[in-house]
Formats: sequence, C-alpha cells, structure tokens
Amino acid sequence: MNYKIAVIPGDGIGPEIVGASTKVLDKIGEKFNHSFDYTKVLAGGVAIDTCDTPLPQETIDICKASDAVLLGALGGPKWDNLPGDKRPEAGLLGIRKALGLYANLRPAILYEELKASCPLKPEIVGDELDLMVVRELTGGIYFGEKGQDGDNAAWDVMKYTRPEVLRIARKAFEIAMKRNKKVTNVDKANVLGVSRFWRSIVLEVAKDFPKVELNHLYVDNAAMQLVINPKQFDVIVTSNLFGDILSDEASMITGSIGMLPSASLSDGKFGMYEPIHGSAPDIAGQDIANPIATIISVAMMLRFSLDLTEEADLIEAAVKKTLSQGYRTADIYSEGMKKVGTVEMGQRIIENL
Amino acid sequence: MNYKIAVIPGDGIGPEIVGASTKVLDKIGEKFNHSFDYTKVLAGGVAIDTCDTPLPQETIDICKASDAVLLGALGGPKWDNLPGDKRPEAGLLGIRKALGLYANLRPAILYEELKASCPLKPEIVGDELDLMVVRELTGGIYFGEKGQDGDNAAWDVMKYTRPEVLRIARKAFEIAMKRNKKVTNVDKANVLGVSRFWRSIVLEVAKDFPKVELNHLYVDNAAMQLVINPKQFDVIVTSNLFGDILSDEASMITGSIGMLPSASLSDGKFGMYEPIHGSAPDIAGQDIANPIATIISVAMMLRFSLDLTEEADLIEAAVKKTLSQGYRTADIYSEGMKKVGTVEMGQRIIENL
Ligand SMILES: [Mg+2]
Ligand SMILES: [Mg+2]
Repeated sequence: MNYKIAVIPGDGIGPEIVGASTKVLDKIGEKFNHSFDYTKVLAGGVAIDTCDTPLPQETIDICKASDAVLLGALGGPKWDNLPGDKRPEAGLLGIRKALGLYANLRPAILYEELKASCPLKPEIVGDELDLMVVRELTGGIYFGEKGQDGDNAAWDVMKYTRPEVLRIARKAFEIAMKRNKKVTNVDKANVLGVSRFWRSIVLEVAKDFPKVELNHLYVDNAAMQLVINPKQFDVIVTSNLFGDILSDEASMITGSIGMLPSASLSDGKFGMYEPIHGSAPDIAGQDIANPIATIISVAMMLRFSLDLTEEADLIEAAVKKTLSQGYRTADIYSEGMKKVGTVEMGQRIIENL
Repeated sequence: MNYKIAVIPGDGIGPEIVGASTKVLDKIGEKFNHSFDYTKVLAGGVAIDTCDTPLPQETIDICKASDAVLLGALGGPKWDNLPGDKRPEAGLLGIRKALGLYANLRPAILYEELKASCPLKPEIVGDELDLMVVRELTGGIYFGEKGQDGDNAAWDVMKYTRPEVLRIARKAFEIAMKRNKKVTNVDKANVLGVSRFWRSIVLEVAKDFPKVELNHLYVDNAAMQLVINPKQFDVIVTSNLFGDILSDEASMITGSIGMLPSASLSDGKFGMYEPIHGSAPDIAGQDIANPIATIISVAMMLRFSLDLTEEADLIEAAVKKTLSQGYRTADIYSEGMKKVGTVEMGQRIIENL
C-alpha cells in the first residue's frame, strides 16, 4: 500500500526526532512492502519566520489531503513575546481545530528498563505499566462560553453536547477493543449535571460494546487511583479538563516523559501524531535529543490511522529491545548503560526491527 | 480560658475516635489550665434514626453558639438507600452551608515512621512531607448554575465572585504566615477566564503579605508536581473543583489516609474539624479504629479556632512520639510494631503529652 504522510518537523529538536522517526518508518515500508510518501510542511516558529503565520493555509490543505500527520514539536523562546494568536502554540490549536481532532490519546507507558526513573515504588507499578487516557479535545469548559461582570465576577461554562460525547465515548470503546477491553469513565456525576449527562451517553455507547468492561470513577478518586493503583486501568475516557489533568498525572507516574507519544484523532481514521515533550531548543541541533517518543508516535500512527497493527507492534518491540540492550540517550542515561545520540538511537531501533 | 466545643460523634467509628480525642483535649486542658465544655449533638445516620432528619436545627444552633465543632464521621450502608436530601451526607453539606464554612484545609502529612506505606519512592518524599491544600468549599462549579437542553446538551457554570476569592486567598496567606510562608496558587489561567479573574485577586491579596512567597501553577502541572516533587509545596490555594482533585491526590501520596485531619473554616476563627476518613461501619464498636486523624483534627482546632499554638504543637509532637515508640492501630500495623486499640492509642498519646 501507498500512504501519504504530512510531516511537520517544527522547531527546536523537531527536525532531528522526526528525521530519526521517518527512517524507522522507511524500514517498515521496506520490510512490509508499503510506501510512505512524505510531504514536509511548515507550522510553528519556523512558519512564523518564513510565512509570518504559525499555520499557513498550505499546511492545513496538505494535512487534510494526507492519511495522517506526523509532528515533531512547535515553539521556543524566540517566539514567546509575540501576541497570543501569532505564537507557535496558536499553530497547534489551529491545526487541531482545522483538522477536527477531537480525541486526544495519551498512553502512559512504563518501560521495565526505565523503572528507576518512575516516582512510584516498584511494588505499585510492577514490571510494566500501560494505560491510555482518551481525552475529549475540542469541547467542554476550555471551549465553553465565558463571561465577566466587571470586577465583580467571572465564569466559564462546562458544556457538552450529545454528539460530542457520543463520538469520544465510541472512540474510547473502539480503542479498548484493540487493547484489554476495559474502559474507566471519569467524571464528577455526583455533583455536576454535565457529568451525569456525559455518563448517561457513555452507558448508552457501552451497549454496543458488550465485550468491554466499563466502570466509573469520580475525578478526585481517579487522581488518587493513578498514584496508588495505576495497574487497574486500561483505557480512561474523560472530558477535556479532567483529561488534561489526568493525562499529565498519568504521564508523570511513568517517570519518562521523553518516551511518551500522543495521537489526536478525528472521525474516521485520520489523526495527528506527536511526542508529548516540547521542542527543547536548548539541545537542538546537537544530536542528543531522545527520538523514542516520536518513534512510538509513528507506531501509534500505524495502529490507529493506517490499521497496520503488526507493523506497529514491531516498532514497539524494537524500542523495548533497544532499551534492553542498554542503549540510552542522555535524558534517560544511567551508569553502566551505553550513551548514544539521536541518530544512533534511531539506527539501533531500526536494526532491531 | 473556657471554650465551648460542639461535638458531633456521628456514625460508625465516630463515637470511638471522638471519645479518644476529647480525652486528649481534656489532658491539654489540665496541663494548660483551659476548660473545654463539650455539647454533644446529633447529625448523620444517628440523627435520621432518632429525629428523622440528618441535620436537626438544634445541632446547627448549638454549633453556631460554640467556639468550634469536632466531628467524627457520618454515614453508613444502613442509610444509603434513602433519597438524596435525607441521607447522612446531606447533613454534612447542610452543616457546612449553615455555618458558612468556605475554606477547607487539607494537610497532607507523611510521618517518617509510616514511610513504608507511602506510594512514592523515598528519594522523592525525603523524611517528611507536610503541605496544606486550602480549597474553596462553597463556590465554583459545584455550586454554579446548571442547565440541560433535553437530550441534546447539559452544562454547569464555573463562576467566582470577587468576595469569594478575596476571602479564600486571604485565608491561605494567613495560614502560610503560620507555616513556611509560601503560597502556590493553582488555576488554569492560560485557558479559563474565571481562573484569570481568580489569579488577579490572589495577586491583589498577596500585596498585603509581602513576607509570603507566591507562585502559580496550572492545575495539570500541579497534579504532576505532587507526584514528582511534593516537597516544593507549603500552602496550595485553589478553587472548589481543583481543590477536590488535588487535596485527594495529595492525601494519597502520604499513603496514610487514616492519619489525615481536616478543617473547614468560616470568617473569623470559627471552624469545624474532622478526619478525612469515613465512618468505617464494618469495624465500629470493636476498639480497633485509628483515632489519630481525629486527634490531629483537635490539634488543628486548637491552632486555627482557639489560637492555642503551643497546645497544638504538643499534640502533634505526642502523636509523632507515640508512633516512634512503635504503637500502631491495625490499619497502620507492620511487623515488629506494637498493636494497640483505639482507647490504648489515645492513652499512649496522652502519656506523651
Ligand atoms: Mg496539560
Ligand atoms: Mg474528594
């Protein structure tokens, strides 16, 4: 098969980590007889510098005409003093909106080889940890009506519509079917009307997935459970605000943010894939950035947008094998390991494919 | 001095833990020449059984006429099938409202002797952990307008007024002045208008407390920082919803929920004090419940409502000493320690006063 991939290298370490990742993808193409056509497009700071906008229309058009988008990282101090809508972050929000990316998938994975950097005790995390937060990304209180009454009061509205909840719930159950068939819905239905509404729709969608086990947690309890018993989770589905909090907490308990990918999906199979870490301009261009989060983002792209499950599994296995062989970039290096740069880490992973 | 204390033993283990705690308070009275007059009043399940309401008016009146309220725990499965407004929890919400308790103080304390039950690695928590979440308790989205448009949409409004933010911010800074003089304001000001409003008022209040260091965290980042670097915090001040999530997360990282007290304060010095754990009806009446959370709630009462700092310090020191002597109730027992019941734990702490 032939796949069209829009590639947004972005700023800082973006070009290096994306470069290492597309090489992994090329090797997958070779092994499985796929061809991946990359179209490089601009967004973020580099787009501001060359086109005077963080998100050129051409970028949106090319992304829309692709099967999936791979993004490195956007932003850096160079552009931090620009007004809000001219900043690189506006490019990211703009692209999510333009592409209708309403489902944010945030896996929290702990690798046995990196257990030392996990803040939780070994008896809590066991050998591995692998959960997925499915966060609603384009609704809820972050996009609700807001208002202010002079100096007297201010408010934001947490609102969800039926179609918004239906599609994110469906996405979560579909993902659970590809994993361990367990969905934990997180809300605050004991207090919030919008949560009771949300939960009623999740229960409705659950009927179409009789093989998936469903349970419910209040958000305050979920924040506790992530710390004392994270292994109970497979897929967590939740709203924009709660998902923002819980996905960040979940990534932190793994202790290895430099290793974590993300996906933002729209209807159908289209999606954008990116590491959750930033553009790290201080180490850009030195061949020391860790490309693993981006390489695993590529595995997510194969799994969720291209339906190439075997290929995705192979990349993830190769990453684990490379770690077990002792190869480490500087950010995850510990004594006795073999320190490698961005390019060599990519090559070692390719050798293990 | 003579102090009037309204005592609500409540349900389950409530009467036992409150009984152990008032004995500690009596001993403090003896040592320091104070007299504490207790008036026992009903709330929760026991009030439902005897007065057919979870919160008799007499209880409110007596609480209002007191210097402070000490509460054990309310509720149990016996009353779980009653309608919402007839349940024991309604008594708790009702009393908070009737007494104007807008500031919820939730200390998260890790005792060196109980480090083994902390879910975080020792290098993260060090020898001790002692932070305080100051949560706004009677405003925000839990009390905002709510609405529903048939099956199409539902919403809740997160609103704060200027007086609401002023008083909770002031409370937080006052508390920080009695602690390590550091306040971390937690909001989501990069996205929410109500958070920008909240933050502007916190900044205004900060001017009156030039000795207190102030910083700001977004709520998603705060959820992460609690896991990887909890020692950075002294006082966290935040809204009702964010405080619900973060205070529960903070208590969980201590690994000893049976040890944690809480205070709910109104204007002036009046407050209600209670352990954060529940009524544990399964172990009620067996002299095995842990009274420490309630005894430390009494210390908070001395500190915040009665201005008896030395007396409060003494109770806290006695609890630590008792733990260091190896005395443990069943819930915190580990091998090699001396297992004691509710009454004996209280007595050992009294001996150490
Ligand atoms: Mg976040
Ligand atoms: Mg809670």
